[in-house]
Amino acid sequence: MLVVMQSQATNEQIDAVCRRIESLGFKPHPIPGVGRTAIGITGNNGPVDLATVESMPGVVECIPVSKPYKLVSRDVKQDDSVVSVSTPLGDVEFGGKSVGMVAGPCAVESRDQLFAIARQVKDAGARLLRGGAYKPRTSPYSFQGLGEEGLKLLAQVRDTLGLGIITEAVDNESLDLVEKYADVIQIGARNMQNFSLLKRAGHAQKPVLLKRGMSATLDEFLMAAEYVMSEGNYKIILCERGVRTFSDHTRNTLDLSVVPAVQRLSHLPIAVDPSHGTGRRDKVLPLSRAAVAVGADGLLVEVHHDPDRALSDGPQSILPEEFAELVREAREIAHVVGRRIN
Amino acid sequence: MLVVMQSQATNEQIDAVCRRIESLGFKPHPIPGVGRTAIGITGNNGPVDLATVESMPGVVECIPVSKPYKLVSRDVKQDDSVVSVSTPLGDVEFGGKSVGMVAGPCAVESRDQLFAIARQVKDAGARLLRGGAYKPRTSPYSFQGLGEEGLKLLAQVRDTLGLGIITEAVDNESLDLVEKYADVIQIGARNMQNFSLLKRAGHAQKPVLLKRGMSATLDEFLMAAEYVMSEGNYKIILCERGVRTFSDHTRNTLDLSVVPAVQRLSHLPIAVDPSHGTGRRDKVLPLSRAAVAVGADGLLVEVHHDPDRALSDGPQSILPEEFAELVREAREIAHVVGRRIN
Amino acid sequence: MLVVMQSQATNEQIDAVCRRIESLGFKPHPIPGVGRTAIGITGNNGPVDLATVESMPGVVECIPVSKPYKLVSRDVKQDDSVVSVSTPLGDVEFGGKSVGMVAGPCAVESRDQLFAIARQVKDAGARLLRGGAYKPRTSPYSFQGLGEEGLKLLAQVRDTLGLGIITEAVDNESLDLVEKYADVIQIGARNMQNFSLLKRAGHAQKPVLLKRGMSATLDEFLMAAEYVMSEGNYKIILCERGVRTFSDHTRNTLDLSVVPAVQRLSHLPIAVDPSHGTGRRDKVLPLSRAAVAVGADGLLVEVHHDPDRALSDGPQSILPEEFAELVREAREIAHVVGRRIN
Amino acid sequence: MLVVMQSQATNEQIDAVCRRIESLGFKPHPIPGVGRTAIGITGNNGPVDLATVESMPGVVECIPVSKPYKLVSRDVKQDDSVVSVSTPLGDVEFGGKSVGMVAGPCAVESRDQLFAIARQVKDAGARLLRGGAYKPRTSPYSFQGLGEEGLKLLAQVRDTLGLGIITEAVDNESLDLVEKYADVIQIGARNMQNFSLLKRAGHAQKPVLLKRGMSATLDEFLMAAEYVMSEGNYKIILCERGVRTFSDHTRNTLDLSVVPAVQRLSHLPIAVDPSHGTGRRDKVLPLSRAAVAVGADGLLVEVHHDPDRALSDGPQSILPEEFAELVREAREIAHVVGRRIN
Repeated sequence: MLVVMQSQATNEQIDAVCRRIESLGFKPHPIPGVGRTAIGITGNNGPVDLATVESMPGVVECIPVSKPYKLVSRDVKQDDSVVSVSTPLGDVEFGGKSVGMVAGPCAVESRDQLFAIARQVKDAGARLLRGGAYKPRTSPYSFQGLGEEGLKLLAQVRDTLGLGIITEAVDNESLDLVEKYADVIQIGARNMQNFSLLKRAGHAQKPVLLKRGMSATLDEFLMAAEYVMSEGNYKIILCERGVRTFSDHTRNTLDLSVVPAVQRLSHLPIAVDPSHGTGRRDKVLPLSRAAVAVGADGLLVEVHHDPDRALSDGPQSILPEEFAELVREAREIAHVVGRRIN
Repeated sequence: MLVVMQSQATNEQIDAVCRRIESLGFKPHPIPGVGRTAIGITGNNGPVDLATVESMPGVVECIPVSKPYKLVSRDVKQDDSVVSVSTPLGDVEFGGKSVGMVAGPCAVESRDQLFAIARQVKDAGARLLRGGAYKPRTSPYSFQGLGEEGLKLLAQVRDTLGLGIITEAVDNESLDLVEKYADVIQIGARNMQNFSLLKRAGHAQKPVLLKRGMSATLDEFLMAAEYVMSEGNYKIILCERGVRTFSDHTRNTLDLSVVPAVQRLSHLPIAVDPSHGTGRRDKVLPLSRAAVAVGADGLLVEVHHDPDRALSDGPQSILPEEFAELVREAREIAHVVGRRIN
Repeated sequence: MLVVMQSQATNEQIDAVCRRIESLGFKPHPIPGVGRTAIGITGNNGPVDLATVESMPGVVECIPVSKPYKLVSRDVKQDDSVVSVSTPLGDVEFGGKSVGMVAGPCAVESRDQLFAIARQVKDAGARLLRGGAYKPRTSPYSFQGLGEEGLKLLAQVRDTLGLGIITEAVDNESLDLVEKYADVIQIGARNMQNFSLLKRAGHAQKPVLLKRGMSATLDEFLMAAEYVMSEGNYKIILCERGVRTFSDHTRNTLDLSVVPAVQRLSHLPIAVDPSHGTGRRDKVLPLSRAAVAVGADGLLVEVHHDPDRALSDGPQSILPEEFAELVREAREIAHVVGRRIN
Repeated sequence: MLVVMQSQATNEQIDAVCRRIESLGFKPHPIPGVGRTAIGITGNNGPVDLATVESMPGVVECIPVSKPYKLVSRDVKQDDSVVSVSTPLGDVEFGGKSVGMVAGPCAVESRDQLFAIARQVKDAGARLLRGGAYKPRTSPYSFQGLGEEGLKLLAQVRDTLGLGIITEAVDNESLDLVEKYADVIQIGARNMQNFSLLKRAGHAQKPVLLKRGMSATLDEFLMAAEYVMSEGNYKIILCERGVRTFSDHTRNTLDLSVVPAVQRLSHLPIAVDPSHGTGRRDKVLPLSRAAVAVGADGLLVEVHHDPDRALSDGPQSILPEEFAELVREAREIAHVVGRRIN
């Protein structure tokens, strides 16, 4: 159910509607748009009698929402949500006219490795650094990440170089720490339906980057975002990272058609990760170009100065000089489609 | 790395080898077999110099293990692991000659619903009851389960009817409670690579039923079990529940070939869940027969006395009388393949 | 559109209705059932005005058929179609109470090879021999089959040993020859949507065994059979042989749930090919048991007396003695589900 | 096996080597490159003793080829093959610096429809018209195309407007006619492993556009091209058109990563069909941009002036004015990646 307010509705009127919704036992979600505010209602299973709301001052209409997702839907908010990440070097935006650029190593391995790569991706123009402190690895015997020590190294990079930090949380405990040290909380593909973690991310004060699960349909992907949003965190960046198919020339099959598909149904920005999406170094550059051309709102790229010795995902990391080339090409294509790399 | 002990090696010799391994900075996993004990070694990345171990009394040989999984592998333990679940009605075994039978509703909905179904599946011959208190649902607006209240109802069923209880844990908090109230801890398909949860399950004192992820390869499935086992919990029942494919006549595609594939590589028992594996009531009976025929070590079946009003997964639940028929047919086919329903 | 005749309708009445349908520019397909005859109508795009038909003597009703397939549908014919293959050793049936058994080498390689294997599968109880004279191979440099020479060898086996012959046609030319020499015409998975070949098979006087394409949905599978049937050949045996998924422990993923799914929608019999369906010798026996248990109407098994030297598909062929064991187990399971191996 | 000739080798020397290869019972395939000629050898199963060839004048070396495909491989020919299609309006190239543009309706429906669309795609800048006269349709009751009548209409378009024609052949009979009337012979996805048809196309005197099968791996795709090439037709344009996965927001999943993957292994050009690749009108424009950005050597787009009344594939056809916009954007992106739309 969705309450659409008049464009000239006052804050008092909006508040009054929210209180009425709460008094009926539901949870209101006011979502300000460019032209008007809409108020999503959650907590209802089945129809709600909102006759008393519909007649309140400032209300245009109450409309039932048939889609399983509500808050992430364009029905609730027509214009694009732009998620802004503040960094010492300035805000980086995902969505609208902006394509947010994120780069860095798969895993934080050491102070030297992290600073070496961070300097080079900053030189190439990126203002957001990715790097895992908690690594969900298929094998219990693989390098599992440096944990909080890694988060502290990431925070030092921000203090020293001014880069914003995006890093993954794998459970409630690590999410507490990631929220403390980083600027964007990443939820990985393997946890896209870890609903307990999604709910916790919904209470975080930092934006969430939510990766699509390896076999998630579009509906499941949007519903995972709905879990986060229904708990109150509206700053969500979706991210396509390849899906699992029979096709074996890449590690995953990057599904670029999901970008316009998300943008049609949802107001949320969607980024693309061509590194995990292909798993092959030589495919990262062409697929990055394609991602910008298709209209992605962000790019996540794995960069390593010594990929052959990387403790994780070396075969899909590109060299810093390749990343600089990638940024140049992405800028030109972004220009063609009326966007700017950010 | 694997240390194979002589068949007549004493407990003292085995202990001595374990202490030596620990002193080298690794973790020993003694795994008693029918004929002899093997000791798996974890904690090593890359080769280990075990010259000093190889020459110890009672040791036959130290062999490198090339597969990514070790403890779950037949290399470590040749004979089938039989996982035994103790219930007031007697032990229920999975593996070896035994096919463990589990039945019950998808979700615990109420005391009346649970007891009604529990009585009927007990009458049909089952001694293990399934039923979710914590439900991982695609939508945040769907019924999420009764939580601890549901666990208490399940415990009452055991106290009253003598059935053993198997129910799902979705995060560390719920796992603590499930371990307290239930007899088997279920890890669901969506959490198969929730490594934080797998590690916690590895410290539990109860057997774990680990479901295959929707797009998990056989290696990933076995590696998930390796996560649990490497933390010390060796009582694991694997469970095939359908994988995600293009095929749309069933909700998932039940991959029965994974049963002999697991049994070839691993000593762990593997059960089949034809209810989630097909998502269609009329497919549950034929696929249950096929699961027993292919050699499954267990069956998990959703049964509901009023499927059309079930709060979760009604379309795939069978009626109690259909379950009684299923048990009859399963017994006959089990007999043909030299097994018994348990 | 479907015309349902009275159970006591005479042949003259049925003929009269067919002529009326033809005079309206459509094609009638009289399909005799146990209780009554139905007449399918094809050649119409969109609704047909059959008022003049509905009032003819012997007609019960004219009902519109909404499914894209008509002739293969249970709407047209309620009872199972039993496809009978006549061999010098007696008729072999697929469907109803009968599970047809077919065995033999992947490819006809030589007279000696063929007779050696044929004798052994006959000894084990099979009366139908499979063996390819035209082999659709992924590589142009692989053995492509003996062609007509191979067909002649197959015909010699029938003359000498009495076994019926099933072999694949790959184009119109080879279909002419297969129809001449063999008892059942096989259309392979790669040609399931070779509509030109399907139409030609629809004019053949021999039964057709139609394999499911590697990525065919159930609807596409049934529509391919509809192509054959709409040209007038009603003797079709469908065959599941594995579909292509991400799963890599078998060459294909055998989708046994398609057996009850076909049987629900269509009156046609459906067999299972566990050899191609798994691509692994050690999986053929357990999956054959499962196929019979799930209710398959036939089994196609690759048998080779010297698999390591087979010119095609050696890794999935079982030995003659394994086949004898397979027949024994299949018989017992068929008995449990009220069927008999044929 | 591959014979590499000296860069200054004469035609006589090359001919002599070919005759020697023939005299040994094999088939030589001289493939001229920019710098030198290589001669592929087919017809051998297993190793070949070419000692007498290696010592002939003009020969640099004989190297064994380990990949299953030979003639399509970069091992045989290092530089890109550019396939040139001659039209009354001038040659259209696929490969090298050129991105060939093809547009038109899914099916030829009538003279008026075809000319209306042809004029508009010509106005937008295309010089190659696509349009099916033989339609492989899932249902036997769907419009199957106009057949030779459709081919004649296509030929009239070429005579009148100067556009080159590309249209599909579905069997040997239609291929004879397509070769006669059209400029490029299309082999559809459903026939990618119709090896009989591939061999016939290998004898054609016109270029072949070969679409990837719905579940074809990269190796199978290249092997299908190898079938055509091993019969002597070296003018092949590959075409990605989406593969079948679990993902349901588009009809197929367009696998753009196959473009750089093909270009790494093969010298053949590869085009992209975003219309079949997505099945959704609103996805065609963004995925066309992405295809050019990723490096595709051609684009095939379905255009219809009245998509809602199209007899085939209306939901994925774009309007002529959308196509004009597509060409504009494709030109700009092609410029960024150093290519030109052709």
